[in-house]
Amino acid sequence: MQSALRQDAEDIVRWAIRAVSPEAAVERALAGMEFSGRVYLVSVGKAAWKMAETAVKCLERSVEQGIVVTKYGHVVSPLPGLHCFEAGHPVPDENSFAAAQAVLDMTKNLCPEDTVLFLLSGGGSALFEKPLVPPEELGDITRQLLAAGADIVEMNTIRKRLSAVKGGRFALHCTPAHVEAIILSDILGDPPDMIASGPAAPDSSTCAQALRIAEKYSLKLSPEALACLKRETPKTLTNVSTRIIGSVRELIRAAEARCRELGYTPIVLTDHLDCEAKDAGRFLADILRTHRGEKKAAFLAGGETVVHLTGKGLGGRNQELALAAAEGISGLNAAVISVGSDGTDGPTDAAGGYVDGDTLAALGERGLSLARVLADNDSYHALQAVDGLIITGPTGTNVNDIAVAITGE
Amino acid sequence: MQSALRQDAEDIVRWAIRAVSPEAAVERALAGMEFSGRVYLVSVGKAAWKMAETAVKCLERSVEQGIVVTKYGHVVSPLPGLHCFEAGHPVPDENSFAAAQAVLDMTKNLCPEDTVLFLLSGGGSALFEKPLVPPEELGDITRQLLAAGADIVEMNTIRKRLSAVKGGRFALHCTPAHVEAIILSDILGDPPDMIASGPAAPDSSTCAQALRIAEKYSLKLSPEALACLKRETPKTLTNVSTRIIGSVRELIRAAEARCRELGYTPIVLTDHLDCEAKDAGRFLADILRTHRGEKKAAFLAGGETVVHLTGKGLGGRNQELALAAAEGISGLNAAVISVGSDGTDGPTDAAGGYVDGDTLAALGERGLSLARVLADNDSYHALQAVDGLIITGPTGTNVNDIAVAITGE
Repeated sequence: MQSALRQDAEDIVRWAIRAVSPEAAVERALAGMEFSGRVYLVSVGKAAWKMAETAVKCLERSVEQGIVVTKYGHVVSPLPGLHCFEAGHPVPDENSFAAAQAVLDMTKNLCPEDTVLFLLSGGGSALFEKPLVPPEELGDITRQLLAAGADIVEMNTIRKRLSAVKGGRFALHCTPAHVEAIILSDILGDPPDMIASGPAAPDSSTCAQALRIAEKYSLKLSPEALACLKRETPKTLTNVSTRIIGSVRELIRAAEARCRELGYTPIVLTDHLDCEAKDAGRFLADILRTHRGEKKAAFLAGGETVVHLTGKGLGGRNQELALAAAEGISGLNAAVISVGSDGTDGPTDAAGGYVDGDTLAALGERGLSLARVLADNDSYHALQAVDGLIITGPTGTNVNDIAVAITGE
Repeated sequence: MQSALRQDAEDIVRWAIRAVSPEAAVERALAGMEFSGRVYLVSVGKAAWKMAETAVKCLERSVEQGIVVTKYGHVVSPLPGLHCFEAGHPVPDENSFAAAQAVLDMTKNLCPEDTVLFLLSGGGSALFEKPLVPPEELGDITRQLLAAGADIVEMNTIRKRLSAVKGGRFALHCTPAHVEAIILSDILGDPPDMIASGPAAPDSSTCAQALRIAEKYSLKLSPEALACLKRETPKTLTNVSTRIIGSVRELIRAAEARCRELGYTPIVLTDHLDCEAKDAGRFLADILRTHRGEKKAAFLAGGETVVHLTGKGLGGRNQELALAAAEGISGLNAAVISVGSDGTDGPTDAAGGYVDGDTLAALGERGLSLARVLADNDSYHALQAVDGLIITGPTGTNVNDIAVAITGE
């Protein structure tokens, strides 16, 4: 194995993954942010405690008041000056309603100079809720929609109208204060109005659509619920700034920056990678073959490849991507690394794989045929045999995969 | 269909293909070339007549003497001042030997100031030959090697030593004159010593290897043939300049230049593309998705993808590559075109395919499912239905495929 290349490849990937941890992402989002009036902190979601803890540390001034709402067992310790709630997920419970009410109480009657610092992560839809109909009826309508085969867009169009906080209504409630929304996205390409049903995002669905859905599925609704469907959600919100953090896009941008620091010239290919893993690996190898004359070039791809199983071996999409690149870069001063940002890849203890110009020969010396290994989907054992596994353990973040293809000095 | 994008995409591809035609490639190779002494022209191969005709037109001075050797029926008309031979291919015949002898006679006793302009294309190995043993014995040795299962490298190691012109010996014969070799490569990555058995390329095989091969296969050899195997081929040639023209690399470089002229910022991804066609298309679409905010960006890939058939439809690798990109760029101001440089793609009358941000919707309107079409390998009919076929007719060149992915203004 070419140790300098491997060191750089691992450095780039590990650096990028650290940069999209909730702590690092919140820290980066808050850097240089200034507040003229009072700051009210609202942190909601599975990562709420960690995000709030980081925010309190980073802010130059203390928050006026703050509320944290997260899953049961996720409050690690009390946070000075903040009120921490634990609530139901994935089904909202009384604590979800109580937490939402506490947040609404805290953020009413604010001044235009005030800021609501709204930290949102996955799971917020259940954890943070104030239904406009009795919870029993909300549950009943949800069940009717599911039974009738409604899709997720139809479900949300109805449910946003039955909530006092979803579909932009929480941000509207905060008016005239400014809402600074920092959203940790753990799903590729998720629009802000999908994450936690968008408490601070303008809603694109309409009352007319909601009524058509009710008619289409012959929903049984109380007069109160029907009235809710006729009440419009905000279509524009002038008091909200939104920043998405911890996306695969940030993962790739962080890798790009680290490449530069290490003297590489990086080219971001994509943060939407979604083709077959082994063909992505071959494509990256083809790119390296063409650019082999360029010293320290780096090509970056993020996303989530797929594997169509043809064998019964052990592996993961990142290990398979890397291994499939071994043939194309054989003999070159080049390397390909591919890693899952959460530290796991398939049903293995590895996060991904690494190959370089020596890997194909090393496989051959051990009697391993690359074509055979790929047909068996047995990338784990092949990489293990040539010291090509990347093992990180759980990383605390999850923003898809990163693949880096580099040429040496 | 987005007509401006399509116009640009076709323009880039057609321009690139024209640039690697034998005429354009020879013209470019000769541009600015100056000769101090006399110029002797030797043009050998399937494209010899066209290359010679172009060279004579381009040269600022007339050639002293010249010989053209090509396949039967390939001399279109006499070329003033040149002697045209037609000879046997793929098996050399008396005319091959006569032509080689005429070339050797013309190029002996030259001065250091003289130049032999050596234009070489595929097929030259048979068309241009002077065996050092009787032709019957050459044929017999070839048959022995084939029957024993010798590979192409072993065959060439023996045959180069049985020839007065192969393995660099023609260039050595031209000493002290300079040999300006312009080689039209129609095979991806072929090294100069493989094309026509390298009359003007240093030979990397050795006498020791030749004798080991003779022993390995128990070749029956006359004393003359055995003596030939012990005579070394030139390992370095100080009187030769070599220029490879008409490669896929030139195809991509020409496309890159045309992109700049049309206002695009081009990035050459690879000229070694060799993965599954539809995954190459998806990867290109993923790249466009990420770069959709950049106006007039262009990503170029050359090579030859593969198609693993899963259905019984009609199509080709270029059509399948393009079609597979349709989903990823749906709704974007972007396009992907992929074309075979010889003007053919699979068993169809199309050279390739074009898709843009409207293609997926257009397929849907016609009741065509992209997933179904790809599973059926029926890209031809799907592209036909949405006006996505690229039809060029035969182009007169063959340097693999080109795929271009662009974003709009």
